[in-house]
Formats: sequence, structure tokens, C-alpha cells
Amino acid sequence: MQAYDRLLERFRRIAILGEATGMLHWDAAAVMPDGGGEARAEQLATLREMAHALLVAPETGDLVADAEAAGSDPDRRCRIALMRRRWRRATAVPGDLVAALSRAASRCEAAWRAARAGGDYAAVVPFFTEVLARTRDEAAALGQALDLPPYDALIDGYEPGLTAQDCAAVFDRLQSFLPDLLGQAIDHQALAPPPMPLAGPFPVPRQADFARTMMAALGFDFRHGRLDVSAHPFCGGTPDDVRITTRYDEGDFLTGLLGVLHETGHALYERGLPRDLRHQPAGEARGMAVHESQSLIIEMQACRGREFTGWMAPRARAAFGGTGPAWSSENIHRLVTRVSRGLIRVDANEIAYPLHIILRFRLEQALLSGDLPLPDLPGAWNEGMVELVGIRPDGDRDGCLQDIHWYDGAFGYFPTYTFGALMAAQLFAAARDAVPGLGQGLAAGDFSPLLGWLGSHVHAHGATLPWNEILCRATGRPLDVDLFRRHLEQRYLDR
Amino acid sequence: MQAYDRLLERFRRIAILGEATGMLHWDAAAVMPDGGGEARAEQLATLREMAHALLVAPETGDLVADAEAAGSDPDRRCRIALMRRRWRRATAVPGDLVAALSRAASRCEAAWRAARAGGDYAAVVPFFTEVLARTRDEAAALGQALDLPPYDALIDGYEPGLTAQDCAAVFDRLQSFLPDLLGQAIDHQALAPPPMPLAGPFPVPRQADFARTMMAALGFDFRHGRLDVSAHPFCGGTPDDVRITTRYDEGDFLTGLLGVLHETGHALYERGLPRDLRHQPAGEARGMAVHESQSLIIEMQACRGREFTGWMAPRARAAFGGTGPAWSSENIHRLVTRVSRGLIRVDANEIAYPLHIILRFRLEQALLSGDLPLPDLPGAWNEGMVELVGIRPDGDRDGCLQDIHWYDGAFGYFPTYTFGALMAAQLFAAARDAVPGLGQGLAAGDFSPLLGWLGSHVHAHGATLPWNEILCRATGRPLDVDLFRRHLEQRYLDR
Repeated sequence: MQAYDRLLERFRRIAILGEATGMLHWDAAAVMPDGGGEARAEQLATLREMAHALLVAPETGDLVADAEAAGSDPDRRCRIALMRRRWRRATAVPGDLVAALSRAASRCEAAWRAARAGGDYAAVVPFFTEVLARTRDEAAALGQALDLPPYDALIDGYEPGLTAQDCAAVFDRLQSFLPDLLGQAIDHQALAPPPMPLAGPFPVPRQADFARTMMAALGFDFRHGRLDVSAHPFCGGTPDDVRITTRYDEGDFLTGLLGVLHETGHALYERGLPRDLRHQPAGEARGMAVHESQSLIIEMQACRGREFTGWMAPRARAAFGGTGPAWSSENIHRLVTRVSRGLIRVDANEIAYPLHIILRFRLEQALLSGDLPLPDLPGAWNEGMVELVGIRPDGDRDGCLQDIHWYDGAFGYFPTYTFGALMAAQLFAAARDAVPGLGQGLAAGDFSPLLGWLGSHVHAHGATLPWNEILCRATGRPLDVDLFRRHLEQRYLDR
Repeated sequence: MQAYDRLLERFRRIAILGEATGMLHWDAAAVMPDGGGEARAEQLATLREMAHALLVAPETGDLVADAEAAGSDPDRRCRIALMRRRWRRATAVPGDLVAALSRAASRCEAAWRAARAGGDYAAVVPFFTEVLARTRDEAAALGQALDLPPYDALIDGYEPGLTAQDCAAVFDRLQSFLPDLLGQAIDHQALAPPPMPLAGPFPVPRQADFARTMMAALGFDFRHGRLDVSAHPFCGGTPDDVRITTRYDEGDFLTGLLGVLHETGHALYERGLPRDLRHQPAGEARGMAVHESQSLIIEMQACRGREFTGWMAPRARAAFGGTGPAWSSENIHRLVTRVSRGLIRVDANEIAYPLHIILRFRLEQALLSGDLPLPDLPGAWNEGMVELVGIRPDGDRDGCLQDIHWYDGAFGYFPTYTFGALMAAQLFAAARDAVPGLGQGLAAGDFSPLLGWLGSHVHAHGATLPWNEILCRATGRPLDVDLFRRHLEQRYLDR
């Protein structure tokens, strides 16, 4: 067998171990009884170790080198390059550091859960100190291997090619108008009486049925996926069998529904990945920014727009037996585009969300560099919240303890949320220009015009193009913050 | 690391690949959307290949030899011997034969589904010929490696140590009284009017709730397992997270319930396996005969007895809102012990069941040896049914096409069902003698006396003792067919 074919077979095995891990992770979150947790943790750790061992084995590096040396067409070169990239990142970090980081993160995550519940940041600091130290070691090792600054090497793990310099430039631009725009939007909405709340309760089975109806309208194929319940919504499974989860609140169906629509965007991306590149890095999703662009183009751009809410509202009214003016399309649109200042990132509206991200981007750089000592994090957090979002947390529970990411060792992840939001706005504007009938489709519950365009312009590329190249080819220009601004001004200032 | 510890680690990985395979199999049967099937088949095949490759690697054999040479206590020797056994069986069959058998079985299984639907045995013969030829090759290879006659080598894969000679002796004894006893039982039951049917419909959610209540009474721990629905009921998952499945018929809750109780018996065995031997062959269930003894001691011995049905009947009446004399404990007991002559093994009562097995035992030997040419199977089947069960199939659908086993390459499996039934009767009699209050427990829905005894006398041994040694130690004597006979005479002839 040729080196390239042997390489494909090796990566196929690695991918299938990953698919098994993904399904077991879904199972643990959605259906596993509690008592299975310990055994499941061992299963997951062992399958991951086996995949890692296959990846970092010297034979993998040799096969990559042989396949490169054999020379070939540009497509194959790209596929091999992505395998080299995967191998290089995996081999850059010594095994004992991987293990130390994993142990530190597990301990810190547990400590964080208790610390957050009690709002007691000091309690997590000893564990967090260890995570931060090991993350610095990891960033240094990765940076050296990839010839990147340490922090960039971490970001690159979430969205390949994205740099701190990209982030800083974009985030400075965003900061130049978002805080004002947030205030203007709040003032603008205050000119009218607040939207009327929808009176529940909304029984969970009915919410689940309605969510499935909406998913089907979006193009989710239930022969190749499921919707279930978990404490933390996610999109998992495999491209052939996408498992999304949500949680329901009997007093509010809109939050659960929009969560489902968000995860459906992720799911449609996974389903649209190139089948002929399955089980190799080139056939996987590009990074987390691109992934988030696909969830946000569905949730934020399409589903919170007037076209979709106009179609969805009467169907929701029928599904839940709603009556009265609160169920009008206009009122429901106002409910899903309501803006306020809040402390919690995951509850933030799309104007405020990037401000939460900018805060985290700056703080995580300062933590990694040592400019911000760990004990000073709460103070810096609270100052930053005042500067960026305009409110101050009462305590650390709703402040620097709110997100799991850092305590779990995920540094460099946060920026991808906002790059995803910006890409979503730009892709949606381009799709509208390019596809006749896209808006009429949304207004009729028909997402196929939008999905067709996303399929060929984003999904079908898999990981073969960098995020900014996908964007350039799809929209004719590099990332343009003004398209995001225009979207927000249209939606929130009626401009 | 010592050879023994490295061996344990190797088998731990093999076992965890097996656990992942088990969970993915459960998922495919219970929750997976249809479109995931192709990808799932590839996942399962790849994980099985990886486990097989780990097992048959020369290092495994070297480590076993080194661990044996290091010498140690009897317990460890037993554990190593079970690893050698696993390795020997796996290495006995050349890889290309394993692949050929797997391919032939997959093709034949598909052909069998169509052939059975149409009752067209001739259509499956070409595929079955290939399966049989490859199974003969497999039996020859295994027999040579294990120093066993070929058919014994196949039986040994399902219940280690069980031989064709054991089976022939026991089955001859059974044939000496079972056909008569079946007739007597039918005549005896005909002295009274038939039991009154229970009027449905029985909604599936209520059946599932009731089944869970009964499972809990039996000692099934829902923190470590689940009950779900699948086309073919089975017990899967892992000892820490046992997944059993059933199917429901809205017109008849008893069949589904007894299926659940049967699988619960399997599940309790898995849960009771020795935790300190987890992830090595010694900690696994003994063979299929022992496994079946644990499902049948629950379903047949305990749950179809008057003590349990007396407790269950009023609870079923309450659960389903039943009224009238059909819901009396006596009538329900008569329903679950009703005897007749039937063509289908899986529907057979406990008197007739061994007769179905004896037929298959004799025919599979004749097929393997070549004494029975494949085209002659239907005739031989129908003759055997007349001789043993006293009825003749109308066609092959309800005759030699009814079971998947042979067409899927499973020869040597059938005898374990009946050895399980005999063991169950003997173990139940011994438990009754040994445990005061066992019967009163069952009459009060309390299975803990029975379970406590089974736990220490059967479950806790894992695979460290052969089936007949487990039986001898638990009951004080080798397999005794008379105990099964006595059980049947008591239950069906009121002796």
C-alpha cells in the first residue's frame, strides 16, 4: 500500500475512535444513568488515549513525510498538510504535560463547581494556578513547534490561522461602537412599551414536538440525527448521525427553541461536510469560529429575523394553544430581539455578546503573560464589565466564575464566538445578495435557499480552506466588521 | 512493569473497546436513527478489528507466556489461564478465515431475511452453503488449536468446557420423558376450562412503567441501567450500566413483561460480576449456559411461580385498571404457565423448549459433519418436529428458517439454552433449600433472599470456574436432569 493510503487508514481509525468517543459522550449527557459515570470516564479516557497514541506514533510522522515526498496534486497535498498539522500539534506537547494538564483541569473543574456555587473565587485559586501554569507550558511547547507566539498557538487549536493580532484589531473596532450601540438600542426599545410576556406553562413534550417541527423546516434530517435533553445543550454525534440536545423551561419556550435552532445550525454544518473526505482531517469541520458562524447564521441572522418569526409565531400559537396579542408575530419578534445589559455571557444579546468576549480575550492574555496575577482577576473582571458592558457584578458567581472554560484549561477559545458572529452577519448578507428568494423562503419556513448556498459555500469545504479564505470566497471580501454593525443597526435601531 | 501488569493493561484496553462496541450496539438497537446505520456498521467493525488486533498480537502471547513463567498464586494462575484461553481461540483462526466467515455470514443473514419472509428456503441455500463451509474451516482450526473435536470447539466458544457428549447424554435423558410430559400437561390443563384472557389495550407507557416497577422489585438498580425498546430484546451495555430492551404489544402485557423479567435476570448477573476483576476475562460472565440460567431462574423459576404471580397480579390489576375474575392471581398464574404444542422456539413453553433445542443440536451436528446435505434440511427438520414436539410445520418459514443463528454462522450455541434451563431449575431448588424465607420473599415481591444467594454462589465467580463447577459448588451435585423434571411435574401436573 502507498504511504498515502496507509495514512488514510491510520486517520480513519483515529477518526472512528473519535466517533465512538463522541457517541459515548452524547450517551453520558443524554441517557446514561448516573451510576455509569465512573466506568464511562474510564472508557472515554482510554479511547482518547488510544487515538492519541495512534496519532503521535512515530509511524504517523514517517507516513506523513513519505506521502509528502511522493508528491501529488494540490488537493492531496492539502489533505496531507492537514494530517501533518494534526500530528504536529499532537506531538508538540510531551505526554507527561498532556497528562498533567488533564489532571489539573479535572481537579480545577471540580473545585470551580463548588467555588461558583458559593461565589468563592479564592477557593479555586490554588487549582487555577496549576491549570494556568500547565497551560503556559502547553502554549510554549505548541508555540515552539508551530512557530507561533504562545497565545496564538492556543487560539490556533480552536480556529486554525486565527491570531491574537486579528482579534485585537477586530475587537478594537467593535469596542469603538458596540457600547454606544447597546445604549442606543436600549433607549430605542424604551420608546415603546415592553413586549408582552407569553403566558405558560409550556409542557415539555409539546415544546419538544414544536422544536422538532421547526428543526424539520430548517432542513434537519431526522433519519440522520436526534434531538434530546441534556443539562448543557450541545451538538454531538457524527455527520451521519448528529445528536443535538437542549433543555426546556416550562415557563418559557422561546429560550429552549432558540437553543435548538442554534444547535441545528451546528448540526446542518456537520451534515453538510464533504462525504468523500470523511474520517480524515480535511473532511472535518473547520474551527470553532466557522462552526459558530453556522449556528449563529441560523439562530441570530435567520431565526430572530422578522421573516422567520412571522412564519413561526402563528405555528407556535397553534402548538401551545396561545391566545391574545402577546402571540402576534410582532410581539414575538420583539421578545426574541429584546436588548438589555446583563452580567452573564450565555444570556447576552447579540450586541452585548462581543463585549463579554473582548473582556475575556484581554484578561486571558494578561493571565497567560503574568501581567494579571490570579488574585487580581475579580477586580479586573469587574472593572472591565463596567467599561465594556456598563454594569458591575455583585459577586464572582456572576463575574469571573461564570464560565467553565479557563478552569477547564480552555484559553484561546473565547474569541471564536465573536468571529463566528461576525462571519455569520457577513455570510448572511452575501447569501441574501446572491440567492433570489432567500427572504421569501424564510418567510415561508423554507430554509432550502439559504442552506443550499451555505452547503456549497461553507459546508462543502470541510477543513480544506482557512476560515478567512472560506469567508473571502463566499462573500468576495475579508472579514468586514461593518456588515455586523449594519445588521445590528438595522435590527435594533430600525435604520 | 511486570508481564502480568502489562497483560492486565492490554486486556483492559481490549475490554474497553468491547464496552464501547456494546454501547454503540445498544444505541443502534434502541435510539439510533436509521440513516446512521452505515456509519455505525463501520464504527463497530473498526472497533472490533482494533480489539482483535490487540488480542492476537504476538506481544499478547509473549506476555501470557512471561506471566505464566513468573509463577504465582492459584488465583492469578486462573486469571492468566483465562487470558491464554482468549488469546488461543482468537489466534487459532487465521485472519482471512475470520474475514471470510464474517462476510459470508453478513451476506447470508441478509439473504435469510428475504428467504424467511417468503418461506423460500432454496433461496438461502447458496449463501448458507458458504457459511457452513467456512464454519467447518473455523471448527477445524479451533479444534486443532484447542485439542477438541470440531463441533466441541464451537460449543466451547459459547460455554467453555461444555461438550457434545455432555449434550447428547442430557438430551437423550430429556427426550425419554419430555414428549410424554408435554402431552400429559396439555391433557391435565384441558381438565379445566382455559384461562380467561386479559382484555386490553394496554398502553405502552403504562406497560413500561409497570415493567420498571417489577424490575425494581427484582433488584434492578436504575442508577446502573436502563430499560428501552428494541425490535429484538437483549441485555447489553456494561456491568456498571446495564441496558436491557424489550418490545411491547398493546394487546398483551404479559409477554412483554416476562421478556423484561428474563432480561432483568441477565442484567442482575452482569451487575453481580466481581468488580475487582473488571476488564479481564476472569471478571466476565461465564458462558451462555450460565447466563441463560440466570435469566431463566428469574423468569421461569421465580416469576412464573405462584408466589410471585400472587404478588404481581393485584399490582398489574391496579396498574392497568383491570377488573373481573380474569385478573385473579390464579387466572394470571394459569396464563403464564399455559402449555401447548407450537412450531416456534422463541414462543415455546418450558416443557417444549428443550425439544426444539434437541432438534437443532442433532441437525447442526449432521450439517457440520456432512451427514445431512443442506437441501435435505427442511425434510429432516419437519420429521424431527413430528418426532419431538408432535407437530409438523406447514412451511419453512415456521420451520428451519425461523432462527437466525445458523445463517449468521452461530453453530454450537443452541444447546446452551437448555443447559441454562436445567441449571436454573437445579439452582432454584438449592436456593430454596438453603435460604429460609426465599419463598415468602417472592410472595412479598422481595427478591433479595434469592439474589443474595445467586450473588455469592454464581455471580461473584465471574468466569473463574467452569459452568459445572459453579453448579456443583452451589448445589452440592453435578447437573441433575431430575430436578428439572420434578420442577415441571410440580408446576404442570400438580404433583
